[in-house]
Amino acid sequence: MKTYLDCIPCFFRQLLSAARIANISARDQKKILDKFAQILPDIPLSYSPPEIAHIAYGILPEISGKKDPYNRIRRKSNEIALSFLPQLKKKIEGTKDKLLKCVELAILGNVIDFGVRDDLNLRSEIKKILNTDNYKKSIFHYSEFKRVLKKSDFILYLADNAGEIVFDRILLEEMKNTYPQKKIYYVVKSEPIINDALLDDAYRVGINMFAYVMTNGSNAPGTIISLCSKEFKGIYKKADMIISKGQGNFESLSRSTKDIFFMFMVKCSVVAKHIGCNISDLVLLYNKKRR
Amino acid sequence: MKTYLDCIPCFFRQLLSAARIANISARDQKKILDKFAQILPDIPLSYSPPEIAHIAYGILPEISGKKDPYNRIRRKSNEIALSFLPQLKKKIEGTKDKLLKCVELAILGNVIDFGVRDDLNLRSEIKKILNTDNYKKSIFHYSEFKRVLKKSDFILYLADNAGEIVFDRILLEEMKNTYPQKKIYYVVKSEPIINDALLDDAYRVGINMFAYVMTNGSNAPGTIISLCSKEFKGIYKKADMIISKGQGNFESLSRSTKDIFFMFMVKCSVVAKHIGCNISDLVLLYNKKRR
Repeated sequence: MKTYLDCIPCFFRQLLSAARIANISARDQKKILDKFAQILPDIPLSYSPPEIAHIAYGILPEISGKKDPYNRIRRKSNEIALSFLPQLKKKIEGTKDKLLKCVELAILGNVIDFGVRDDLNLRSEIKKILNTDNYKKSIFHYSEFKRVLKKSDFILYLADNAGEIVFDRILLEEMKNTYPQKKIYYVVKSEPIINDALLDDAYRVGINMFAYVMTNGSNAPGTIISLCSKEFKGIYKKADMIISKGQGNFESLSRSTKDIFFMFMVKCSVVAKHIGCNISDLVLLYNKKRR
Repeated sequence: MKTYLDCIPCFFRQLLSAARIANISARDQKKILDKFAQILPDIPLSYSPPEIAHIAYGILPEISGKKDPYNRIRRKSNEIALSFLPQLKKKIEGTKDKLLKCVELAILGNVIDFGVRDDLNLRSEIKKILNTDNYKKSIFHYSEFKRVLKKSDFILYLADNAGEIVFDRILLEEMKNTYPQKKIYYVVKSEPIINDALLDDAYRVGINMFAYVMTNGSNAPGTIISLCSKEFKGIYKKADMIISKGQGNFESLSRSTKDIFFMFMVKCSVVAKHIGCNISDLVLLYNKKRR
């Protein structure tokens, strides 16, 4: 997806939010916005939003000296989400189509995004998830998901945020139980970027019990293939099916020619308009391989 | 009021909205945002938001060649608001405290602001005003307003937006009926800026029947005294009481030492936080002269 002009104010907003979470002086916060403002004219809008966000977030450690301001948030998100794991699992029991419920939960977990909202109350968000059964699903290619999953041997699962990965774990467990022979790779970021999940997070919530955990060699928000490691690129190329979590991965991979199932909660009006749905809708979008 | 860091993303958003209303190419829209980005690092945050907005909006005609993109919107806002004038006046009849109702209506009219929302449906907004009687008034210095009004001979009324001025007319008529001897000056902008009222707008809706209509010599959003005409500055200095409409005037005059009653609808979280209330609250804030 290309960057829209509406994304520009949002980059400044996100950067300010990150600078605040880094707990630096207002003067340094302004310096960070100024630096991004200086670079902006040279950035073409043909870049995807995560490509520009990657440049923007790169300014933060440069000026603040802080490489991982979201560390505490990531850790806490995992802990809180994990504490709800038994209740979340209970919600699946007895449902007619377990896989469907797990897919829904994995998408609902995408509400945990501190790049979009810095005032997120995790506990109350998860309680809402536990107490709701009617979600607005505007694009939901579930039958295709089920079909492609069945026939795919080699699955790549691109993670998004810490905390959210507990919801991924539920889906991965269901996939592993149904198809123990399939090879599933679960991919996190190599270095800190916002609250995106890292290797340590994946292990902490036990993803490794159900999938091979690896990094993509990059610290970009989303998945910018050109910035990823050779190892990741090889696996990305070979995968039969890709499950991609979060709006950032959608924004950076929507022009891909691979078989991808994008799972995310719509976070902004730009993406909502781009795919024709509303903010907060659950999306399971099949990007069919062009053969 | 100084500019907060949160205002920075908002300047970009407002500028983009104005560029779109000017109906120029996406390339030129980007050029306008880029130009503002280039200037931004040199602008100190001690400036009030309207001072920075004035710089930002100045880029628009420079690049687009369009000096008055909101012309049609202004004209239409006046026409639509005027068509509701009989119903609005009827709403006042029979109320116990007519002045109070007129003050409330004048503030409610401040909803007509295309700098904040470009998707405003004027008719439905005015219908809402006609059908509601419970407004959230967090700061409402009405008894002070009534008292100061009574004793003031020379009143300065700073207008905000086209369309909204029809609501001002109602308040002005009530003031004129109650106090026919008082001298009231109604001040509009000299040249186009967003949908702010101009001389032509004031005459179109008949303000001149109830007040002397004049311009402030400036095309800044809000009232930036240093940019105003000598004539306006003289009147501003002499006035016993100033009625100031809209958030822009509040932002630019909140540090004034004059007796000012700020009347506006809270439009953003920054101002809401600054004065301690919520977005959409009606505010009648007494800025008492420091003697």
